[in-house]
Amino acid sequence: MADDYLVKPGKKAKLADRDPADTSAFKSEEAAKAQLAEDAAEIDRLQDRLYAEGKRSLLVVLQGMDTSGKDGTVRGVFNQTGPLGVSVTAFRRPSEEEMAHDFLWRAHMAAPKRGTIGIFNRSHYEDVLVVKVHKLAPAKDIDKRYDQINAFEKMLTENGVTILKFMLNISKKEQRERLQERLDDPKKHWKFNPGDLDDRKLWDEFQAAYELMLENCSTDHAPWRVIPADHKWARNAAISAIVRKTLEDMNPQYPKVTWDPKSFRVE
Amino acid sequence: MADDYLVKPGKKAKLADRDPADTSAFKSEEAAKAQLAEDAAEIDRLQDRLYAEGKRSLLVVLQGMDTSGKDGTVRGVFNQTGPLGVSVTAFRRPSEEEMAHDFLWRAHMAAPKRGTIGIFNRSHYEDVLVVKVHKLAPAKDIDKRYDQINAFEKMLTENGVTILKFMLNISKKEQRERLQERLDDPKKHWKFNPGDLDDRKLWDEFQAAYELMLENCSTDHAPWRVIPADHKWARNAAISAIVRKTLEDMNPQYPKVTWDPKSFRVE
Repeated sequence: MADDYLVKPGKKAKLADRDPADTSAFKSEEAAKAQLAEDAAEIDRLQDRLYAEGKRSLLVVLQGMDTSGKDGTVRGVFNQTGPLGVSVTAFRRPSEEEMAHDFLWRAHMAAPKRGTIGIFNRSHYEDVLVVKVHKLAPAKDIDKRYDQINAFEKMLTENGVTILKFMLNISKKEQRERLQERLDDPKKHWKFNPGDLDDRKLWDEFQAAYELMLENCSTDHAPWRVIPADHKWARNAAISAIVRKTLEDMNPQYPKVTWDPKSFRVE
Repeated sequence: MADDYLVKPGKKAKLADRDPADTSAFKSEEAAKAQLAEDAAEIDRLQDRLYAEGKRSLLVVLQGMDTSGKDGTVRGVFNQTGPLGVSVTAFRRPSEEEMAHDFLWRAHMAAPKRGTIGIFNRSHYEDVLVVKVHKLAPAKDIDKRYDQINAFEKMLTENGVTILKFMLNISKKEQRERLQERLDDPKKHWKFNPGDLDDRKLWDEFQAAYELMLENCSTDHAPWRVIPADHKWARNAAISAIVRKTLEDMNPQYPKVTWDPKSFRVE
């Protein structure tokens, strides 16, 4: 399944050809939810081994338009993993301190420790998305960032960090419904930000920026995957399957100790 | 139940009078586990409100001898809370960078953001526990730390941080069994640290340091609770009940928005 969503390195990444409502990977919603439950429990067990091993880490990058379900993915896929070996970093508007550094500085600060899973809720990719669309930095600087990101991620992977990057792909129509829901449901008012409507008006510009990002930064060491996200259950099931498979392939081991357990006596 | 475990501010905290195997707060193990499941789910819901409100935070401090179940508490009580609004900070041997600052610096760095629950797995209290027992700092400096900690915690509480402090109280006998298990079970070897046996030989010195800590730092704004921890299920059920009750008392609210939802149109 993992390969269905891949943006092949060096290839075009036409979002128009990818259906945000695609659920063809799953027999049914029930089957997908059952699989998610199994995957989530297995991710928890695998994370325990990763933590025990203490040598490598997993970085999960979540990007997507407003309401695409980044928070929901963290809850849906990682709630069972528990907070012990998982850290979530939300990349909001940069602070003055962060702005005083290069754009990768805060991403590097938040890189997951050995033995843990780090989740980026938005990420350093904002610097080629919102920053590009709203022209918050000179175009010539932004153009250089794709290669800078690729080099940064390559360094991470060469130092024990496996990177999974998911673009949560929702349709403009589904976004309308979710924004409207935030306006209609008083419990969701706090999630609504009037600025989201301004970004919605720039939908096409954002899609173009996403395509550039996908084409320039889907690499062999850290490929992008475009996840159909109009159906929350399909989104969660797809991501949980890929995370589980990735951890299984990493196959973390309980460390062998250098001492002889029989040589110790607990008195 | 919360009050059964309290160390009353200004009172002696004789650990010898507190039974680590006490389960009298619970009708049965089954009942305790059922209550834990309910509490964990409710903590998840309350945390969602805390996150939405975004004004206050909860700091949970876990201290206890080796094998007392600090990691197990995080898993048992907070696994369902999910990582979105929870951060866990493990306080290990300080780095050179940390040693170059005052002892409260790293605790302050790790203080939970507004809207989140922060869990300290060990904490700034190590600086009056292991540091005291192993004489890693001058006694006159350590003596001043109790008041410094109290002032630090008072400042935090006055700035929106509710503090819960749990000492996980296990018996020397139970610790022997848990250490032996780590030696006997190859899957647990990685948890065993030969240095733990040295600390076990200093059991009485550690107990004395814990008593001093409890007596000096159980305050009205941030009281200590001593949790019987020989039975994992009783430990988890006690802590989950207190965390839930505390969040209920905080009663976080979905924020009222300043704009009129009807004034927006999603196009």
